[in-house]
Amino acid sequence: MKRKVTLKQIAKELDVSISTVSKSLRNSLEIGEDTRLKVQAFAKFYNYRPNNIALSLKNRKTKTIGIIIPEIVHYFFSTVINGIEQVANENGYSVIITLSDDSFDKEVLNMEMLANGSIDGFIISLSKETQFKGDYHHISEVIDQGMPVVMFDRVSNEILCDKVIIDDKLAAYEAVQSLIDKGRKKIALVTTVDYVSVGKLRTDGYTKALLDNGLPFNENLIIKIEDVDTCEIIIGKLLEDKAIDAVFAVNELFAVTSIKVANKMGLNVPKDLAVIAFTDGIISKYSTPTITTVSQSGKKMGNRAAQMLIDRLEEEEKTGLEEVEENYRTEVIETHLIERESTN
Amino acid sequence: MKRKVTLKQIAKELDVSISTVSKSLRNSLEIGEDTRLKVQAFAKFYNYRPNNIALSLKNRKTKTIGIIIPEIVHYFFSTVINGIEQVANENGYSVIITLSDDSFDKEVLNMEMLANGSIDGFIISLSKETQFKGDYHHISEVIDQGMPVVMFDRVSNEILCDKVIIDDKLAAYEAVQSLIDKGRKKIALVTTVDYVSVGKLRTDGYTKALLDNGLPFNENLIIKIEDVDTCEIIIGKLLEDKAIDAVFAVNELFAVTSIKVANKMGLNVPKDLAVIAFTDGIISKYSTPTITTVSQSGKKMGNRAAQMLIDRLEEEEKTGLEEVEENYRTEVIETHLIERESTN
Repeated sequence: MKRKVTLKQIAKELDVSISTVSKSLRNSLEIGEDTRLKVQAFAKFYNYRPNNIALSLKNRKTKTIGIIIPEIVHYFFSTVINGIEQVANENGYSVIITLSDDSFDKEVLNMEMLANGSIDGFIISLSKETQFKGDYHHISEVIDQGMPVVMFDRVSNEILCDKVIIDDKLAAYEAVQSLIDKGRKKIALVTTVDYVSVGKLRTDGYTKALLDNGLPFNENLIIKIEDVDTCEIIIGKLLEDKAIDAVFAVNELFAVTSIKVANKMGLNVPKDLAVIAFTDGIISKYSTPTITTVSQSGKKMGNRAAQMLIDRLEEEEKTGLEEVEENYRTEVIETHLIERESTN
Repeated sequence: MKRKVTLKQIAKELDVSISTVSKSLRNSLEIGEDTRLKVQAFAKFYNYRPNNIALSLKNRKTKTIGIIIPEIVHYFFSTVINGIEQVANENGYSVIITLSDDSFDKEVLNMEMLANGSIDGFIISLSKETQFKGDYHHISEVIDQGMPVVMFDRVSNEILCDKVIIDDKLAAYEAVQSLIDKGRKKIALVTTVDYVSVGKLRTDGYTKALLDNGLPFNENLIIKIEDVDTCEIIIGKLLEDKAIDAVFAVNELFAVTSIKVANKMGLNVPKDLAVIAFTDGIISKYSTPTITTVSQSGKKMGNRAAQMLIDRLEEEEKTGLEEVEENYRTEVIETHLIERESTN
């Protein structure tokens, strides 16, 4: 028996990227003719069959939804999955989850694996690397072949499909405005070093709130960091210099770390330092003091994403059309501020 | 085109349980003849094809591992998944995750879905309901058909297969012993109301530690609860009565709630109340005070489970045998106490 060869094996064997193999097999003109022909010949020799989703869709409905998310040890994505499961199960659908680990290659491979007849449609949040590369050919392809895709949270404007997002800019704006309303004037933004779309939007919202209120914009107060240790050092320094009276953090680890630093220095939260985090996480509910948060509404986002996908699947079934384009929707889920002890 | 009917639809149509349908299709004598024949006739009419895993295994290797876990908003399971992904990816395997939501039916349905040619083997942690019912036929069947299964954490002695566990009894014993060593004499066990095997083992360890140290065993100090609100009320009452000087909690939410109650009453943790939690979670690292924990070694557990499954898959491949029985292993991962502020 000749073992079925995978995209990954072809890439390894020919020493090219997974993206190159994937594009060559679709005969994409982005790839030079030499490489394209080499990949195609190799794939043919090993009986590699690229997905023919359109065909597999005609033959059966799996009643299964495939999810691809960047990571799992992340409360937000867990709550989105719970939201998807809920609506899926109510409608008789099963759910399969795979992780991209924020890797482009893993995202492509998982999509390839699931599209191979296991599922009826995708719900996906892009990996950081995919957003950085701006390479979405794997997603366009499944859509072109008639398999519906719903994107959530980390989406791309370059892909035409249904999307569920929150208004990250507005949410950040409102959070910073609430700090200003409480008399704070030196507000630090603690964010991550990355290329994810939502990070930029939150920075924009932060900046706009300052400017609209006639507060000085100080680039030194936009802190882009990777880990909590750096957070501890920088916030400690800023507190020492009395350079800040509030922190708006894009996740709860940065928020709780800022609070710890302030406490260690004998400062009082919220009196000396007010703190807000962007999160649905549980640390905020249980820390001392509890932390005011901008809710990301993960569960609601999952509910809506599942409903949009199922609507599209059932619509196709009714009309018999596999490409009911043109009417893609982007739903914006409302966020809200949950006031807790760290600001009051 | 006649739509492929699912186990769930047959169960609904005939108004019987999914378990009954599943067993009837295997011609299990546990099910009365009338029902069995009715289910079989119905399935035949709708062209329902039960899995023939043995056949599908002969035809292809998917290089994919299927995981079934009880829930996802749970740090422990997330870390196990990370551990599985790591070893799987290193060995060229992909991973698919499904959730049972602690429901027996969902566990059976997900197993059925994945066993249908999508994966080479399972890594599973049993749902509460499955452990309560003691019905493991769905797992025995896939094993009987030659598909390897590795169980972790919530396992059953009734199933012969590879297993990865921690010694919950010993871990609980050591945690309670450490509290006794620090002079605590009135130690409450805060645990959940459920039928999961690990819960009983932890209670056994708690009890043994008390008895071995000649401390009185007081049933009122074993607190079986569902939620943090109840935790707050009961711990509050016990503290008021000066009935406890330490809490050993089976999860970090109960631990952090106990600390909050003590703080509200003006008591000091650890002076007036020492607290240990059974968890790999992050709340413990970031709460004030930080919480001493028994590490569940989730990532290590995932690493080992994946390695055991892959070893078995590759062994089968080498020998050509699909049932290399007799030498099933149960690996016991070591736990350790991570000392933090709540006990020192």
